[in-house]
Amino acid sequence: MTDTANTAGDTIASAMRHALSLAAHGPAWGVNPQVGCVILDSDGNRIAEGWHRGTGTAHAEVDALGSLQPGQARGATAVVTLEPCNHTGRTGPCSEALIAAGVTRVVYAVGDPGAESGGGAARLREAGIAVTGGVLAPEAEEAMHPWLTTVRNGRPYVTVKWASSLDGRASAADGTSQWITGAAARQRVHEQRAASDAIAVGTGTVLSDDPALTARGDGGELMPHQPVPVVIGTRRIPADARVLQHPQPAIVTHSRDLNAVLSGLFARGIRSLYVEGGPTLASAFIAAGLVDEYAIFQGAVLLGGGRPAVTGIGVGTIGEARRLRVHDVEVLGEDVLIVARERDED
Amino acid sequence: MTDTANTAGDTIASAMRHALSLAAHGPAWGVNPQVGCVILDSDGNRIAEGWHRGTGTAHAEVDALGSLQPGQARGATAVVTLEPCNHTGRTGPCSEALIAAGVTRVVYAVGDPGAESGGGAARLREAGIAVTGGVLAPEAEEAMHPWLTTVRNGRPYVTVKWASSLDGRASAADGTSQWITGAAARQRVHEQRAASDAIAVGTGTVLSDDPALTARGDGGELMPHQPVPVVIGTRRIPADARVLQHPQPAIVTHSRDLNAVLSGLFARGIRSLYVEGGPTLASAFIAAGLVDEYAIFQGAVLLGGGRPAVTGIGVGTIGEARRLRVHDVEVLGEDVLIVARERDED
Repeated sequence: MTDTANTAGDTIASAMRHALSLAAHGPAWGVNPQVGCVILDSDGNRIAEGWHRGTGTAHAEVDALGSLQPGQARGATAVVTLEPCNHTGRTGPCSEALIAAGVTRVVYAVGDPGAESGGGAARLREAGIAVTGGVLAPEAEEAMHPWLTTVRNGRPYVTVKWASSLDGRASAADGTSQWITGAAARQRVHEQRAASDAIAVGTGTVLSDDPALTARGDGGELMPHQPVPVVIGTRRIPADARVLQHPQPAIVTHSRDLNAVLSGLFARGIRSLYVEGGPTLASAFIAAGLVDEYAIFQGAVLLGGGRPAVTGIGVGTIGEARRLRVHDVEVLGEDVLIVARERDED
Repeated sequence: MTDTANTAGDTIASAMRHALSLAAHGPAWGVNPQVGCVILDSDGNRIAEGWHRGTGTAHAEVDALGSLQPGQARGATAVVTLEPCNHTGRTGPCSEALIAAGVTRVVYAVGDPGAESGGGAARLREAGIAVTGGVLAPEAEEAMHPWLTTVRNGRPYVTVKWASSLDGRASAADGTSQWITGAAARQRVHEQRAASDAIAVGTGTVLSDDPALTARGDGGELMPHQPVPVVIGTRRIPADARVLQHPQPAIVTHSRDLNAVLSGLFARGIRSLYVEGGPTLASAFIAAGLVDEYAIFQGAVLLGGGRPAVTGIGVGTIGEARRLRVHDVEVLGEDVLIVARERDED
């Protein structure tokens, strides 16, 4: 490999790394993934950048191209974290925009798995553009993991969160649980709520705890993005329940059928669901095999009895244990956050 | 502060750091702490080093002095991780050895809390030696934490270990538990056994699991140091129990009185006890307030039912929760090891 090729390779990788950081500016919620794009001129200089700012706004490629003068993208390279779409939704197809702009090379990280939106690479090649996929794919797949999982499963990405003692109890024998975890862990929960499209609790939790289900900052102020509160179950909830005063209108499912609930949420454009709602609801999601990620906050306490954070999930013997993969472990103040995911089929 | 003082300060701190690393060569078990010593000549050059190799052998200071020619330590500085002892046990007092060698300055990290062995610093000062304590004290206290706790409490340092699922279960509903944790976690347990004076199980565990309680390497070979197996409880165990074939003669307590058991072990010179013996024994130690450290291995599985790793510990409401401090968190293969300690009184 010549020095020149090396330099070009480095430039593409560093442009992709920058595109990934641009992608993170976009909202973590909503039907579209976070995508970033960098445009390089033929000398490898960055001449434009863009990212997707949320449903109904320009895709990252179009956002980047929009900052250029007419003709300026001719002969340029577009470096984008996701394969350009080939589909007219609320915006036109990015593949056509890139062709029209005169871009001669497109480099992307992850292929678009969407049945409707995919096929952009093939369309670009047809138009004579050099296309390379898979650059920094692992990093991009990690960043887009929830969205990719959602597209694959056709239902929202489900994160089940619970807080327990180190010995797995959600509350003491008398039902008290304030505070098993500390301020840093509770603040993280608010951040996770704010990064979700919707947040689910069971009717039992509404009746016993009357939670507000808002995402708040550490000063108690409402965060700019609020998840839609979802109440799952068939018990009636009071008309003055705090969840019904939420800034987002609550969805009261009147149903315990989790598959039906998830389909209904997906049809409304909800792509991520944060399940906070007590051991019964958490265990029902686990037993149904509908969990993608676990956020397990463990406070540095032992209770030895009381209510377990997870109850029956249909496991009778060790061979039936639900086997996960530890994705991340973090110490938050005095507490430990373990993030686990379902194991990939293997 | 002059440059010279600065340089001398750096030399002392780096000598202490080296002494701490020497200390770690000594055995982690037994009645004596791990101690390291470095001797510096008047120019700050290291002329000798030593460490304590275990009960009945020379203390670190004497070990270091022993490598010098007669008269060579005159005017030297001894840098030692623990205050030199002032007590004739199996070996003579280190304070007298340092005085006799002509050392003119002694720097140590942590004071000796022992009623019999303490007072070395005062004796050295009486003899006209310049004495400084507290250098790198936090690092040294951390390294000697189990031994210091033992001296303070007058009983062995008790580590309770359990393996559970992420939701706190030690076994599935039918009692099966192989394997909740993986090979790396199991190997770590063997290393922790080998670093302990003794290892305790309940009679129930002997009857149900018949464990060997040996410390083995990953090839299955016996490690050089084996903990004394201790069986706690009043139920009879079979004459052919594997624990009775252990390389160390087993101590069968015929007692459930944990305070009495710990006193008896302490009287035999046992300073660290690794409690592995099932939820009942673990919970009894916790309920009695006799645990110094917790080694909680969590496998990346969910069980949702079955036997909890910790049962009744006398907590009825959240205000009575046993509050710990997370000391360390480590990912071991697919598992998570949380090391927690009792909170200091505050």
